[in-house]
Amino acid sequence: MRLYDYRDSGNGYKVRLLLAQLGRSYEYVEVDILAGESRSEEFLARNPNGRIPVLELDDGSFLGESNAILFHLAEGTRFLPEDALERARALQWLFFEQYSHEPFIATNRFWLHIAGTGAENAAQIQANHPKGLSALSVMNRHLEHQGFFTAPDRYGVADIALYAYTHVADQGGYDVGQFPALSSWLERVSAQPRYIAMDA
Amino acid sequence: MRLYDYRDSGNGYKVRLLLAQLGRSYEYVEVDILAGESRSEEFLARNPNGRIPVLELDDGSFLGESNAILFHLAEGTRFLPEDALERARALQWLFFEQYSHEPFIATNRFWLHIAGTGAENAAQIQANHPKGLSALSVMNRHLEHQGFFTAPDRYGVADIALYAYTHVADQGGYDVGQFPALSSWLERVSAQPRYIAMDA
Repeated sequence: MRLYDYRDSGNGYKVRLLLAQLGRSYEYVEVDILAGESRSEEFLARNPNGRIPVLELDDGSFLGESNAILFHLAEGTRFLPEDALERARALQWLFFEQYSHEPFIATNRFWLHIAGTGAENAAQIQANHPKGLSALSVMNRHLEHQGFFTAPDRYGVADIALYAYTHVADQGGYDVGQFPALSSWLERVSAQPRYIAMDA
Repeated sequence: MRLYDYRDSGNGYKVRLLLAQLGRSYEYVEVDILAGESRSEEFLARNPNGRIPVLELDDGSFLGESNAILFHLAEGTRFLPEDALERARALQWLFFEQYSHEPFIATNRFWLHIAGTGAENAAQIQANHPKGLSALSVMNRHLEHQGFFTAPDRYGVADIALYAYTHVADQGGYDVGQFPALSSWLERVSAQPRYIAMDA
């Protein structure tokens, strides 16, 4: 397998973290998204949506969308439940992450911490902030009742997807410390076997 | 089963369309999102993220996120491939829909057509427009090579998810007629057995 990715991307980190925890080897190909490399014709042939990460499979085909990649790699492993309804609940959190969390938390982090355009994007950052806080609050409320996102006591793909940008939410101007259950969960995730850091 | 939904929601329509095509009966409960009913404590107990649609299952538990509901209802039916990689490709399009399509096309339609706040949201509508066009362009490019989104010749959950807001994109100020492959696909979807309209 070959992973097309950008080192500072939380979406890419999700896939790197799961691959590390599965003990699977792969070739890493850095795509400089700031230099427009994910919009080249060559890259668009791999993912017409022009986004990383993209996983090139052993049959030479490509799979995009970080959470679709997570789901696929986790099939048949302890990171994804076998029961159909529990799998759907994992998906519920994966869609929550992409719709209600990432666009506000990752985007503000990108402007403030990666692109360095905090000043020119100030109005959008301010508009995003309460929406990101709302997502963190929903997560915190859920974690007051259980240890992990899908099964109460089992770490899995939903935790990986939500951890990626939550653990660096401070870089987007969010104070995760105000959410005690969320903060404890971050520690539980980072204590999982074969955990790797985002910049590993 | 019981579906908590809002009649003008494309996310809700996805679920209603699949349920109709599966021939499954259910109780419909209208939630007036404009009156704040999806933010009540009673509703938040069903979905802490405060969004419709929510499916109440026969065991009394709740499932949120339209595309997670689609995936779950389609398991074991002709609307979802059996092969793991093909299922992941369906998921790739479901995540594309929620991240790169819905926030721009559905949101502009909501302001312009449902809430009637086109004037006060004019700046956001204008900022969203090219992003929505980009999503339609990605879809059109894909449909130049195959008849449906996941398998080349088989209609399924990815088509349902993407159809819901694309077929009413004109209500959000988008001219779908400029995308010939996309326009043909809209016709193929509406000709599927047991198809129902959004306001059915």
